[in-house]
Amino acid sequence: MATRIGIGLLGLGTVGAGVATILTSPEGRHPLIAELDLVRVAVRDLNRSRPVAIPQEKLTTDPEAVVDDPEVQVVVEVMGGIEPARTLIMRAIAAGKSVVTANKAVIARHGEEIASAAAAAGVYVLIEAAVGGGIPIIEPLKQSLGSNRINRVSGIINGTTNYILSRMADEGADYFAVLKDAQDLGYAEADPAADVEGHDAADKIAILSGLAFGGPIDRDAIPTSGISNLQSKDVDYATQLGYGVKLLAIAERIESSSDASPALPLAVRVQPTLVPKEHPLAGVHGVNNAILVEGDPVGRVMFYGPGAGSGPTASAVVADILNIAGIRQLNAAPGGLDPLLAASSWRACRLVQGGEIRQRNYVRFNTDDAPGVIGRIGSCFGDQQVSIQSIVQFDASDEGAEIVVITHEVSSGAMQKALSAITALPEVRLLASHLGCL
Amino acid sequence: MATRIGIGLLGLGTVGAGVATILTSPEGRHPLIAELDLVRVAVRDLNRSRPVAIPQEKLTTDPEAVVDDPEVQVVVEVMGGIEPARTLIMRAIAAGKSVVTANKAVIARHGEEIASAAAAAGVYVLIEAAVGGGIPIIEPLKQSLGSNRINRVSGIINGTTNYILSRMADEGADYFAVLKDAQDLGYAEADPAADVEGHDAADKIAILSGLAFGGPIDRDAIPTSGISNLQSKDVDYATQLGYGVKLLAIAERIESSSDASPALPLAVRVQPTLVPKEHPLAGVHGVNNAILVEGDPVGRVMFYGPGAGSGPTASAVVADILNIAGIRQLNAAPGGLDPLLAASSWRACRLVQGGEIRQRNYVRFNTDDAPGVIGRIGSCFGDQQVSIQSIVQFDASDEGAEIVVITHEVSSGAMQKALSAITALPEVRLLASHLGCL
Ligand SMILES: NC(=O)c1ccc[n+]([C@@H]2O[C@H](COP(=O)([O-])OP(=O)(O)OC[C@H]3O[C@@H](n4cnc5c(N)ncnc54)[C@H](OP(=O)(O)O)[C@@H]3O)[C@@H](O)[C@H]2O)c1
Ligand SMILES: NC(=O)c1ccc[n+]([C@@H]2O[C@H](COP(=O)([O-])OP(=O)(O)OC[C@H]3O[C@@H](n4cnc5c(N)ncnc54)[C@H](OP(=O)(O)O)[C@@H]3O)[C@@H](O)[C@H]2O)c1
Repeated sequence: MATRIGIGLLGLGTVGAGVATILTSPEGRHPLIAELDLVRVAVRDLNRSRPVAIPQEKLTTDPEAVVDDPEVQVVVEVMGGIEPARTLIMRAIAAGKSVVTANKAVIARHGEEIASAAAAAGVYVLIEAAVGGGIPIIEPLKQSLGSNRINRVSGIINGTTNYILSRMADEGADYFAVLKDAQDLGYAEADPAADVEGHDAADKIAILSGLAFGGPIDRDAIPTSGISNLQSKDVDYATQLGYGVKLLAIAERIESSSDASPALPLAVRVQPTLVPKEHPLAGVHGVNNAILVEGDPVGRVMFYGPGAGSGPTASAVVADILNIAGIRQLNAAPGGLDPLLAASSWRACRLVQGGEIRQRNYVRFNTDDAPGVIGRIGSCFGDQQVSIQSIVQFDASDEGAEIVVITHEVSSGAMQKALSAITALPEVRLLASHLGCL
Repeated sequence: MATRIGIGLLGLGTVGAGVATILTSPEGRHPLIAELDLVRVAVRDLNRSRPVAIPQEKLTTDPEAVVDDPEVQVVVEVMGGIEPARTLIMRAIAAGKSVVTANKAVIARHGEEIASAAAAAGVYVLIEAAVGGGIPIIEPLKQSLGSNRINRVSGIINGTTNYILSRMADEGADYFAVLKDAQDLGYAEADPAADVEGHDAADKIAILSGLAFGGPIDRDAIPTSGISNLQSKDVDYATQLGYGVKLLAIAERIESSSDASPALPLAVRVQPTLVPKEHPLAGVHGVNNAILVEGDPVGRVMFYGPGAGSGPTASAVVADILNIAGIRQLNAAPGGLDPLLAASSWRACRLVQGGEIRQRNYVRFNTDDAPGVIGRIGSCFGDQQVSIQSIVQFDASDEGAEIVVITHEVSSGAMQKALSAITALPEVRLLASHLGCL
C-alpha cells in the first residue's frame, strides 16, 4: 500500500499552475502521482482567474499557513524572488518537511545555508526545475554521473538569450529589434536584465557546478557578460567563419599555478561564445537549452530540451515530488537521507582568478586600412605566445578595416597583454569586440 | 556513518574492467564509491592479462560462487549472452541480492520474469547500461519524466550502425566497404548481424518503451529492419533532398481502430529512416547515440552521448550501484522498494499490427524512362489517399529512370496498397527501396 503525501504549493503562476495541472490529472502518468494530494496553495490574489480549477477553500494568501499546515508533508516553492521564498523554505525545513523549488535565484545565493539546514533536519531540498526547465539534468548529475570525475559542464541555460541569438543569426537582425519582439511574444521580461546580462545563467551555472564538482561555488565571483552589447556584425562574421554565437555558461576544472589551497580550482564564466557549426551545442535553437557534461570515464553527454515554460518546468517540479514520494514508500527511520538524492557537498572548490582562465578567443578590431596592420597585430600576439588560428580582414572601406582574429587556447592573462599592445598600435582604433570561442 | 557494500562482478571484459577501474580509483568521484568493496570477480580465463589489477584470489571461474558469496550484497552481471547470465541473475534475486546488469539481450527477453522475481524478493534490478551506454536515459525515464504522459520515444540506439551510416553519408561509401573497416577498427563484431540487422536496437527499444509506457513489450513482435540492404544511392538521394539516413528505433502511442483491448496501443519499430537535416537526431554522428523523449507536459527532451565503450558503459553500471548504495544508507526495513527506482509495470501495452502504423515514407522506384510515369505513380498514391510531399526523378538514362517519392504521414496499410498498384504498372520495374521518414 502506497503512503499518501500532502503537497503544499507556494505560488500558482506559470509554474505553479502547471504543477497543479499534473497533480489533478494523474491518468496516464506514473501511478505514484495519484498518491499526491494537493492540500493547500498560496497566492497573492485570491480573485485572479487561474488556468486550473482549484477549490477556493484550498487557496490562501498566507504562505506560512501552507508551510505550517500539518497535512502538508512536502512544500513546493514556485513563487520566485529571494524573499519571502528563502524564509519559507527554511521554515519548511525547520518543520521537518522536504522542499521542492524552481527558484534558481535563491538556491544560487543561499544554497549552502539551505543544504546544511536540510541535512541537519534530515529532509530533502530538490531543485530539478531550477536549471534547464524540463530537461532532466540535476538528477542525472547527482545520481547517474556520480561515478565520474567531471571535467567540464557547459551549456546554453538561458532560453531568452538563445531565442534572441537564434533570430539574430537567422535574420541578420539587430539585438534591440529582436529583444523588442521577444518581449512582445512573452519570451523576454519587460525588464530583461536578468536574462540578457547573463545573471540568470550565472545563477544556474553556480548550481550546476556545485553539484558536478561536489562543493559550493561563490556565485558572485563568476565573471559574467551577457549579450546586450553583442553586435549583429559579430554574429554575421562568426557565421561566415563557420560558427554560431551562443551565450554559454562554462565551468571546468583547471590546473592552477597558485596551488596553496587544497580546494579544487575551477574556471567558471558566462559569456557569448563562438561555437563551431558541427559542435552539438551549435544545433540548439530558439528557447531550447542544452547542457554538456564531460567526465572520466563517461566522455561527453548532452541533455537537450525546453529550458522554460509552464509544462516543462512543472514536469521537473513533479519529478522531484515523485522522488521524495518514492523514498517515503520505504518507511525508513526519520532523519536518514539517501546521499545521492540529498547531494551534500563533499569537497571544497575555489574559482580561479580571471587571468588563469584558458580559452580560445574571438576578437574584432577597427583599424586604419593600412598595409602591414595584420602583420603588426600578428606580432603582438606572437610576443605574448598567443597562437592564432585565423586572422581575417573584413570590410575594408573609407571607414577603415575590420580585422577578426580567432586564437588557439591561451590564458586570459596573456590575451589581455596582447590586447593592450595591439590597442596601443597607431593603426588600431578600437577593440570592437571580444568573445569566447569553443 | 556510511554502510560498506560488497560488490560481486560477473565478467571482467570490456565493461567489467571499466567497472573495476572506477571501483578501485575512487578519488575525485562521488564519496559513496569509496564505500563499495569489490569482493569477487568471475571470469572464464584466470590467466588472461587484464587492463586493471585485481588480486588473483578475488578471481574465480565459478560465477555461482560470486553470487553466493555472503560478502557480496550487489551482483553486477557484465558477462553477456542469455545463459548462464539469466540464471545467475535469478539466483542473485532469490538470494535477496540486488542486481545491476548491462545485458540488454536478457532484459529484453526475460525482463518481466526478472522484474517480478525482484519485486517479490524486495530487491532492485537496475539496467542503466543496457541502453545508450554512458547516456543517462533509464534513470531519467524512471525518475525524472514520471510526471509525463509519454507519447513517443525514438532514437539512435546502436552505435555500430550509426558509425556505418555516418561514413556512408560523408564519403558516399558503400555499405560493405564501411562494414569491413568498422570490423577492422573494432566498432563492429566479426558477426555483425545483431547490430546491422537491427536486433540490438530492437532489444533496446523494447526496454525503453516498457519503461516509458509502463508495461511489458512483446520484444519478438517488433518489426525490425536493419541497414544491410541499404544502398549508398539512397543515402545520396536523401542527402540531396535535405535528409540524413539513420537507423531509428521508434515507439509511440497511437489511436487504434481495433480497441477491443484496454491495453495501451503502441507502434514500435526499428528501421532505416530519413531524418530532416535540422532535426536534433540528424546531428548525431559516429558511434554516438541519442534518445528523444516526447511527453505531456515536458515537450521534447533529448539525451545524447557515447552509446558504448568500456568507460561510458562502466559509468552507467556504477551509477546503478551508487543508486542501490544510496538507498541502503537509509537502513529501511528489508523488502520495501522505492517504486520509481524499482519501476515495475503499471499497465498493459500491446503492439498494433503493422498496417496501423502511421508514418512518412521514402520510396524509390526503377522505372522505364517514359513520359507520364510520374503522373501514373502519383495517381496510384492519390487513389489510396496517400498524400505526397515530393516526387523527384533522378538519373534518367538508358537503364531507365529512378523516381523517389516522399509521402506525408499515412498508414502502412494504405501505403502497401498504393505500392502494390504502382509495382503493377507496366513502366515500373522495381520497388528498389522503402524507408521511413521523420
Ligand atoms: N516560468 C518559467 O518558465 C520558469 C522556469 C524555470 C524556473 N522558474 C522559476 O519558478 C519560480 C516561479 O516562476 P513563475 O514563472 O511561475 O512565476 P509567476 O508566474 O510570477 O508566479 C508566481 C506565483 O507566486 C505567487 N506569489 C508571489 N509572491 C507571493 C507571496 N508573497 N505570497 C503568496 N503568493 C505569492 C503569485 O501569486 P498571484 O498569482 O496571485 O500573483 C503567483 O501565483 C521562479 O523562481 C522562477 O525563477 C520559472
Ligand atoms: N562493450 C560495450 O560497449 C557494451 C555496451 C553496453 C552494454 N554492453 C553489455 O555488457 C555485457 C558485457 O559486454 P562486454 O563487451 O564487456 O563483453 P566481453 O568483453 O566479452 O566480456 C565478457 C566477460 O565475461 C566473462 N565471462 C563470459 N562468460 C563467462 C562465464 N560463463 N563464466 C565466467 N565468466 C564469463 C569473460 O571472461 P574472460 O575475460 O575470461 O573471457 C569476460 O571477462 C554484455 O551484455 C553487453 O551486451 C556492452
